[in-house]
Amino acid sequence: MNLLPAWLRSYRPAWLAGDLTAGVIVTVMLIPQSLAYALLAGLPPEVGLYASILPIVAYALLGSSMTLAVGPVAVASLMTASALQPLAAAGSAEYVTLAIQLSLISGVMLLAFGALRLGFLAHFLSHPVISGFITGSAVLIAVGQLKYILGVKVAGSDVLETLVGLAKALPQTTPVTLAIGGASLLFLLLARRYLAPLLTRLGVPAKAADLMAKLAPMAAVIVSTAVVWLFKLNETAGVSVVGSVPQGLPQLTLALPGVSTLGQLWLPALLITLIGFVESVSVAQSLALKRQQRIQPNRELLGLGAANVASALSGGYPVTGGFARSVVNFAAGAHTPLAGVISAALMALVIAALTGLFYYLPYAVLAATIIVAVTSLIDLKTLKEAWHYDRADALSLLATAMGVVALGVEAGILMGVALSLAALVWRSSHPHMAVVGRVPGTEHFRNVERHAVQTVPGLLALRVDESLFFANATVLEDRVEALLAHDPSVRRVLLICSAVNQIDATALGVLTQLERSLASRGIEFTLAEVKGPVMDRLRSTELGQRLQGKVFLSVHEAFEHAVQVGN
Amino acid sequence: MNLLPAWLRSYRPAWLAGDLTAGVIVTVMLIPQSLAYALLAGLPPEVGLYASILPIVAYALLGSSMTLAVGPVAVASLMTASALQPLAAAGSAEYVTLAIQLSLISGVMLLAFGALRLGFLAHFLSHPVISGFITGSAVLIAVGQLKYILGVKVAGSDVLETLVGLAKALPQTTPVTLAIGGASLLFLLLARRYLAPLLTRLGVPAKAADLMAKLAPMAAVIVSTAVVWLFKLNETAGVSVVGSVPQGLPQLTLALPGVSTLGQLWLPALLITLIGFVESVSVAQSLALKRQQRIQPNRELLGLGAANVASALSGGYPVTGGFARSVVNFAAGAHTPLAGVISAALMALVIAALTGLFYYLPYAVLAATIIVAVTSLIDLKTLKEAWHYDRADALSLLATAMGVVALGVEAGILMGVALSLAALVWRSSHPHMAVVGRVPGTEHFRNVERHAVQTVPGLLALRVDESLFFANATVLEDRVEALLAHDPSVRRVLLICSAVNQIDATALGVLTQLERSLASRGIEFTLAEVKGPVMDRLRSTELGQRLQGKVFLSVHEAFEHAVQVGN
Repeated sequence: MNLLPAWLRSYRPAWLAGDLTAGVIVTVMLIPQSLAYALLAGLPPEVGLYASILPIVAYALLGSSMTLAVGPVAVASLMTASALQPLAAAGSAEYVTLAIQLSLISGVMLLAFGALRLGFLAHFLSHPVISGFITGSAVLIAVGQLKYILGVKVAGSDVLETLVGLAKALPQTTPVTLAIGGASLLFLLLARRYLAPLLTRLGVPAKAADLMAKLAPMAAVIVSTAVVWLFKLNETAGVSVVGSVPQGLPQLTLALPGVSTLGQLWLPALLITLIGFVESVSVAQSLALKRQQRIQPNRELLGLGAANVASALSGGYPVTGGFARSVVNFAAGAHTPLAGVISAALMALVIAALTGLFYYLPYAVLAATIIVAVTSLIDLKTLKEAWHYDRADALSLLATAMGVVALGVEAGILMGVALSLAALVWRSSHPHMAVVGRVPGTEHFRNVERHAVQTVPGLLALRVDESLFFANATVLEDRVEALLAHDPSVRRVLLICSAVNQIDATALGVLTQLERSLASRGIEFTLAEVKGPVMDRLRSTELGQRLQGKVFLSVHEAFEHAVQVGN
Repeated sequence: MNLLPAWLRSYRPAWLAGDLTAGVIVTVMLIPQSLAYALLAGLPPEVGLYASILPIVAYALLGSSMTLAVGPVAVASLMTASALQPLAAAGSAEYVTLAIQLSLISGVMLLAFGALRLGFLAHFLSHPVISGFITGSAVLIAVGQLKYILGVKVAGSDVLETLVGLAKALPQTTPVTLAIGGASLLFLLLARRYLAPLLTRLGVPAKAADLMAKLAPMAAVIVSTAVVWLFKLNETAGVSVVGSVPQGLPQLTLALPGVSTLGQLWLPALLITLIGFVESVSVAQSLALKRQQRIQPNRELLGLGAANVASALSGGYPVTGGFARSVVNFAAGAHTPLAGVISAALMALVIAALTGLFYYLPYAVLAATIIVAVTSLIDLKTLKEAWHYDRADALSLLATAMGVVALGVEAGILMGVALSLAALVWRSSHPHMAVVGRVPGTEHFRNVERHAVQTVPGLLALRVDESLFFANATVLEDRVEALLAHDPSVRRVLLICSAVNQIDATALGVLTQLERSLASRGIEFTLAEVKGPVMDRLRSTELGQRLQGKVFLSVHEAFEHAVQVGN
């Protein structure tokens, strides 16, 4: 029984209409997107279609989101291209095999992270770093697609090189291709902005108008394919078209990577895994919260892991939960992953019988689809907000975005992660500490620098607002010594541990040495408000022995004691 | 005026006797050690002598410790050998140049860290990791020296390979070499343990006896050199000796590394820099505290940086503050770095006129000196203590030690740092949180799981004991949602921010989304005890706007309000 997912066991007939509608609409979006993203990944179009069938079903069985649309997405496609282009010629059989293996490795990593409950690792990509990464990737993707719009051949490994190449190749522009690509681009941009309001004004209900506007790419695909077919523009005007796409369902095969391939692919696979997971979970979560549902990050790891393994088994490439299709799926009324399963079934139908329809589809239109899709990912709002709220966050966003554009996706994201870790290191090694005094007439104690409080002569009461461990223990010691140097009359140091949840072996060593050194100078070292678990472990140590009778339950008690014994 | 160090400007004649004595005694230790550590580093003996002159003077001018003895040390010598052996043949001119450049790069890094006040970076090597690293290195060094004791040739890049090689080479043992090496080893081990008590029993004052025991290596050097010279054992019995050491003061030269050398040496240089700095500061600090002096980490960076640059300029290799010589320097009565300057002058004398004395010095004795010196670095006490206090720390110690022995010094220390960072990541992503209630009859609020406290129906009061940032914001959100799922009667969430010193852009985003999501479910989100600086920045954000009138000064106030408004 438990093998069936919960949503299927408790399925209600009332949900079927919504799931069916959403399944159909998402399929209409998915067809051009899966072809376009395969192009972006440097893969033959059928690989994009393969990645849009089994992965969806696998996620439906194991994932925790009711509305996430899994499949090929722009950023993972770009990352796939960036990982594989140094290893094999784009579109070659070897390249396709590597893409399949990349998907397999990423899937296994996701499953392993899920089994080890390592979902928390994804928290180490901060929002500004992710935002910067996505924005940088969007620029990279958009620039990379311009050659298809112009109908020229340009090889460039970075943005600058690509732009220079495009400028040089401008005289070779294929006019008809540019006309088709430019018209599609214009149509899609206008449709995104004005189609829904226009349809509403024509009497279409607002929600339906919104959904219909999302189908503009399919309209562009149909119209342009028809035009190219009608005038045979691929032969008469040199318009590049998709050509024959192999018909038939994907073969199930297992392509295990060898050790040297593993060595080449583990890092890109890890980055695709982390970025894909973070993106997918944030989309799934924002949709779930709208319906007061919950996403379980460890279930998501399993769901996405299964989806990637399924993709690898059926000849696809790395997939994850995508933003645009998920939002449409949700808005079109999807209640359960059945919507996805319906979509998968329709895609299977397309690939089994209808791939001939894509023969005259011009690449320029796919490129226009990609460009319009990714420009909506460029996120200046987060940058603006971060700039006002936290300059350091804004700078890490900018650095990551520029790193991606200038150095490529892997170096860019690694730079972002390094920046995040550096921030963590910096933060951890600078714990907040405050010398406190008593608020007159109360048992409350506050920072002497911020409040008018009473202190006891000869007593230095220091509150440290973080657990003590290797990264900050010496900082505490330095602070105490600096305060003592500043006020030589101190005869008693009180360390207030109300925020200390843990003292690791390094910090224990530092405190032990501090206590000994203070004792040798005739200064008493005392503690207050030590938490139960911390005290339990401290008791059996040398420091614990030496501090017997010098640990106060409350700061109040410690102050009273200091007043009584005087200097 | 300020160009002279403070100790020199306020020098008192009364200090001179102590500084002179210490300077002489340290020199007698330094001569065999500098030769031995050069051997360990794979360098000709004179490089060890060069590294023992100018660096000491440079440190005396810029460092902050009064008693630190700077020069060649065991661990940095091992790290030098490990960094250079893949790049050039040990002892070759190219190898020597690389060692000089390594010292220069490390010196510049130290100076840069000092100028940028990056001393805090060294805190990221936790005590257990350092202890494990030193212990592993000591094993590696000791095993590596056995071939000199046996008088055989063995090439092995790791411990296992070396041991196997030694076992195979056993039949080729040079008996006289083994006799000299074994006798020295035995003498040094016995001297370390029993010489001081013996001398005390013979009427020598305890302190003098301790110091004299430290001169045992010099005694071994003199006696063995005399024996080899007398019987010309180098010719008659195949005993390897140091041979001719170039006489004359080192030439000042600047050997700048090229770009490709920089690429090869930056990582080993960084590791030598960090390890050397951490070791040196901890020795300097423990000695300074005994005399109630202070060490300034950023001054130490400058002092050690200058010492390494000076070493490079005068043909030496990476130096740092050593444990054994510093302790002897302190115990022999050194008051100021003048003791070091005297030592440097004596070393200059030795190299200018007396290197001929080392001709018959057998390598086996130097190896015995090294083995005895490093076995005292093997630190099982820290392991034992960590095992009882914090199992995770003990495991990271063991992992680092085994990493060094099995994989080498660089991989070992990198593993240790990675473990430390992983611990930091784990800790940061798991902030302590507690649902609190009121201690009856007071204005104090405590964890409901630990204390008998009163709660208000419909109010969830959650205290988070850490700043909120990218690594833990989602964890807080998950916790709130889990608590709400557990108690659907909650109508008001109170987040107690008494320990929140900062909310970064990621956490702000998460809180904003949480507030919106709660509001949509009719649950009010409120804050209490928000610190001034945090509130200042929050005020201008969307969340700050939405929370107007919902931020309470104290938890008490928030509870009173919740009781009054009821559900």
